[in-house]
Amino acid sequence: MADFKRLPGFRDFPPEDLALRAHVFDAWRRVAIRYGFREYDGPPVEPLDLYVEKSGEEIVGQLYNFEDKGGRTVSLRPEMTPSLARILGDRSRGMAKPIRWFTIPQLFRYERQQRGRLREHYQWNVDIVGEESAAADAEVLAVAIDGLRELGLGVDDFRARVSDRRLLTALLGAVGVQDDRLPAAFAVIDKIERMPEDKARGRLLDEVDLDDAGADRLRALLECSSLTELRNQFGERDAVRDALAPLEEYAAILDAMGMGDFVKLDLKIVRGLAYYTGIVFELFDAQGELRAICGGGRYDRLLELVGGEPLPAVGFGMGDVVLGELLAERDLVPPYRPHVDYFLVVIGQEQRSHALGIATRLRAQGRSVAYPLRDQSVRKQFKAAENEGARTVLVLGPDEAAEGIVVARDMATGQERRIAPDALE
Amino acid sequence: MADFKRLPGFRDFPPEDLALRAHVFDAWRRVAIRYGFREYDGPPVEPLDLYVEKSGEEIVGQLYNFEDKGGRTVSLRPEMTPSLARILGDRSRGMAKPIRWFTIPQLFRYERQQRGRLREHYQWNVDIVGEESAAADAEVLAVAIDGLRELGLGVDDFRARVSDRRLLTALLGAVGVQDDRLPAAFAVIDKIERMPEDKARGRLLDEVDLDDAGADRLRALLECSSLTELRNQFGERDAVRDALAPLEEYAAILDAMGMGDFVKLDLKIVRGLAYYTGIVFELFDAQGELRAICGGGRYDRLLELVGGEPLPAVGFGMGDVVLGELLAERDLVPPYRPHVDYFLVVIGQEQRSHALGIATRLRAQGRSVAYPLRDQSVRKQFKAAENEGARTVLVLGPDEAAEGIVVARDMATGQERRIAPDALE
Repeated sequence: MADFKRLPGFRDFPPEDLALRAHVFDAWRRVAIRYGFREYDGPPVEPLDLYVEKSGEEIVGQLYNFEDKGGRTVSLRPEMTPSLARILGDRSRGMAKPIRWFTIPQLFRYERQQRGRLREHYQWNVDIVGEESAAADAEVLAVAIDGLRELGLGVDDFRARVSDRRLLTALLGAVGVQDDRLPAAFAVIDKIERMPEDKARGRLLDEVDLDDAGADRLRALLECSSLTELRNQFGERDAVRDALAPLEEYAAILDAMGMGDFVKLDLKIVRGLAYYTGIVFELFDAQGELRAICGGGRYDRLLELVGGEPLPAVGFGMGDVVLGELLAERDLVPPYRPHVDYFLVVIGQEQRSHALGIATRLRAQGRSVAYPLRDQSVRKQFKAAENEGARTVLVLGPDEAAEGIVVARDMATGQERRIAPDALE
Repeated sequence: MADFKRLPGFRDFPPEDLALRAHVFDAWRRVAIRYGFREYDGPPVEPLDLYVEKSGEEIVGQLYNFEDKGGRTVSLRPEMTPSLARILGDRSRGMAKPIRWFTIPQLFRYERQQRGRLREHYQWNVDIVGEESAAADAEVLAVAIDGLRELGLGVDDFRARVSDRRLLTALLGAVGVQDDRLPAAFAVIDKIERMPEDKARGRLLDEVDLDDAGADRLRALLECSSLTELRNQFGERDAVRDALAPLEEYAAILDAMGMGDFVKLDLKIVRGLAYYTGIVFELFDAQGELRAICGGGRYDRLLELVGGEPLPAVGFGMGDVVLGELLAERDLVPPYRPHVDYFLVVIGQEQRSHALGIATRLRAQGRSVAYPLRDQSVRKQFKAAENEGARTVLVLGPDEAAEGIVVARDMATGQERRIAPDALE
């Protein structure tokens, strides 16, 4: 017997759910366009190697990969940046820089034993390619912040936690981490918030080779959220000073855009992906109860890695799922109220042709119009008008036709007026 | 070495191509909404059986099917109607009828040896579920016709060729086809336009069991494009008369909507899919040079077949590829002219914070704004403004700042005016 259930981890979007999806996508689009970004898209299936090259073989365990009928090893796209790099690889040399592109792809991950977790989501991807200045980093974060503000979220609802891989590297040196322990230190810091204190300390001693005093210094460092304090404390070190400059410029720009309150230095933000090279950030709900809403940063070597022009790049991905949870929690999901501008109540089949003429004219003017598709009682037709969320019902009967008018009933107020059909708009 | 080429048969959508796609999708959406339809969507991956149940095992050869990591046999969706039936199967009983739903999914077919042919396309799907009257069939065709008119195509550009499976069955009986030869007759008629005359005649004699006179009568019948003539010629037969009635009502409705000129009876339109039960139609370019732009019809038994409520249904699918060819041929592809409302030319880094404040205010008002992300010469900044398609360039320098104004240059006319930044909108 055939199985006609939806696959686990996938969503249907009946109209009431699609309306929320469209609400979010429309906000994302409006904001990206306000910042001068252009929309693009790529295929939802790509050669598997595109992801392996960027993220290593271990990514394959999380992918929706398969062999197609032509023997190609392919995968549903788990993220968009490799496709962006591939598309730009063919064409970026001829393009004016910086390139500001955005897209809203559906992405897919197949992880086993993910009871109840989704295997797909939509992700707003916004990237600036070809500009290495901190102003590009700030611009991208501003887009992410405005994307959430456009949906009604404010400074009480979410925060951007910002760090910089170069700065963290310099600071780790300052507190005594040896160069060859840096990867281990990054790995511990990336997970440190989800680790019990004694486990964190154990790993700092064992894997990062710190002594107790060094581990204390590192823990204290990770709690520092002030660039000024970092400069005061470590500013005598060239590496730290050099690494602070872009973050200071970044903070100044976001302040000038009135977004300073959203942004918080947080050196614990590492981001798992190995390809980030500079400023990185994540957006979280202000209560810190949900997973990250958005993550991004600078990835200056990726385009070259997949065979394109060596171009600096910065961008983010914002998913629709955690964001949807936050919007629901903050009561920011708009009520689903489908409607049509007009519903035509047709009394007697001999009025049908007249009704179709009126509907055609109103639709040509851009109005939405519905009417019964069979002969029905006036009561049933009014019921249907309600179901369709009609704002105005037009009653067309033989008496009205004889007078050359229709009765227009405003469904919110109950008010009726008699009007020549040509005067409707 | 990794292969970073796009998969054969898939398209990238850089901004200039995405703009055309969005132009088409927006037109489709506007029209569907004008007719009171609600948008929905489903997953791009479904259980393979969903398609096998509807179309038979032979469909599998054309699908992007694979086994997922959980051992499920799945497929990228090759069409949307089975997903619609599945989604409604869970929920239609509680819904007011008729249900008017539309969607614009990306669909996938993997056919081998399809040199140069696409393996994906987007398809506008529009369906009315729960209404068996011919008025629902007419409504759906009207949506398809208006979808093309919204893109600038008119009666010189395309035609709807309409038939009815019930009518053709009755007429085939009238010209002497035996009941057990009906499937063979449908199969021959479906292909008859692409067959040499003698081959067609051979198959009518061999497979449909007609004699020469019967084959002549059938050929003559297939050329008839007038309902009146069919009624005159075959109206004494109850089966023909009964089958003519809905088509006559259908034609009258489309006439009343001013669409009669687009619609042509054509008994050669069979549509391959086995599940159609009534009126069927295809839209073609008026010159008949391209493949069908759109196909649809009534499928009253499908929902029950996939385990849902037994509901009559009628709908169509309109693809983006042939339509794109027709739009290009008719010069109806809008030129790609990306733009921003404002580009800010910033003279001196000390003006940057001032510029960011102006940009933030303009964006909050919904304007699109770009500016250089690094210190650049005025000449380079004006060049960038051109690249961004800026409608107005705002020049912000120390002199202007001292006066409390900006210089606003209209890039189309070259006209400049001096204006207080707060007065910009």
